[in-house]
Amino acid sequence: MKKKIAIDMDQVIADMEISFIELFKKEYHLSFETVDEYLKANPNFDLVSTIKELYPLINTHAFFRNIPVMKDSQTVLRELADEYDLYIATAAMDVPKTFTAKYEWLQEHFAFIDSQHYIFCGDKSIIHTDYLIDDSIRQLERFSGTGILFVNSLNETEDRYIRANNWKDIRDYFLSIKE
Amino acid sequence: MKKKIAIDMDQVIADMEISFIELFKKEYHLSFETVDEYLKANPNFDLVSTIKELYPLINTHAFFRNIPVMKDSQTVLRELADEYDLYIATAAMDVPKTFTAKYEWLQEHFAFIDSQHYIFCGDKSIIHTDYLIDDSIRQLERFSGTGILFVNSLNETEDRYIRANNWKDIRDYFLSIKE
Repeated sequence: MKKKIAIDMDQVIADMEISFIELFKKEYHLSFETVDEYLKANPNFDLVSTIKELYPLINTHAFFRNIPVMKDSQTVLRELADEYDLYIATAAMDVPKTFTAKYEWLQEHFAFIDSQHYIFCGDKSIIHTDYLIDDSIRQLERFSGTGILFVNSLNETEDRYIRANNWKDIRDYFLSIKE
Repeated sequence: MKKKIAIDMDQVIADMEISFIELFKKEYHLSFETVDEYLKANPNFDLVSTIKELYPLINTHAFFRNIPVMKDSQTVLRELADEYDLYIATAAMDVPKTFTAKYEWLQEHFAFIDSQHYIFCGDKSIIHTDYLIDDSIRQLERFSGTGILFVNSLNETEDRYIRANNWKDIRDYFLSIKE
């Protein structure tokens, strides 16, 4: 029987950061070139509070429907699909106005994953797969299988899990454990 | 740690049959009093084909938003919530136009269950709870914990699972296993 991998959406296969920066610039009338440039000029910038402020504009069909695909995620998942059963596990209950956007987005960009393998949930502790690829420490902590942390600026100091900086790292990890 | 129960929605906590019969009568311009009366007069009636025919009208917000609550399900689940962690596990991917209806319906009728415990999925084999209460034999077959069959006309000959004809049977079962 194939082993099972559950894959988070936001900031793992959906490059939410790109859409978030765009929204942030538009709403706050900013025009910086790079995030580093902005953070250098605004060392007290509070990402978590900003996400909260922008939440009503994030929890929308338009925002989620148009998030770009994370670099290399399609190619690597298509390869992994030959040897693993792939499941999409997204904490959709945090953004309940985006169910349809998430469903349509998956159908468009990851048509090779069966919709019977989509899981729109909250707490992922009840998901019973061999692996979970996620950027959320909270979700990885609760997960009973092997957790793979998709690294970003909010979780970069975490070292309890296998770390992947990008999808090529994920390909390398699964190649490395191949019998 | 509390044990976990996953609970299906349609035909378990949502009395879909009532809404389905209403829709069936309306669409086919029928006016029978009871289902038994109709089946006696139409012994070749094919439920599965009829569901397929009516699917475009079932896979809608209006249909799912207005399904009545299954008798006694609120009372019994409220009692069970003291001793178990409750999760709602619904094969929503079969009816992808009803995500919002299902979410709103749960918020309205089962507000005591945390939305972080909603699971909108397809295949329930990846759900890792101690119990699953479901009317679908296909889902119970794949489930690794203890399956409880919520009996209806489509599954009544099945005998591999604990059987519940109604929510009082479910209360009795969980009382009977109490330490």
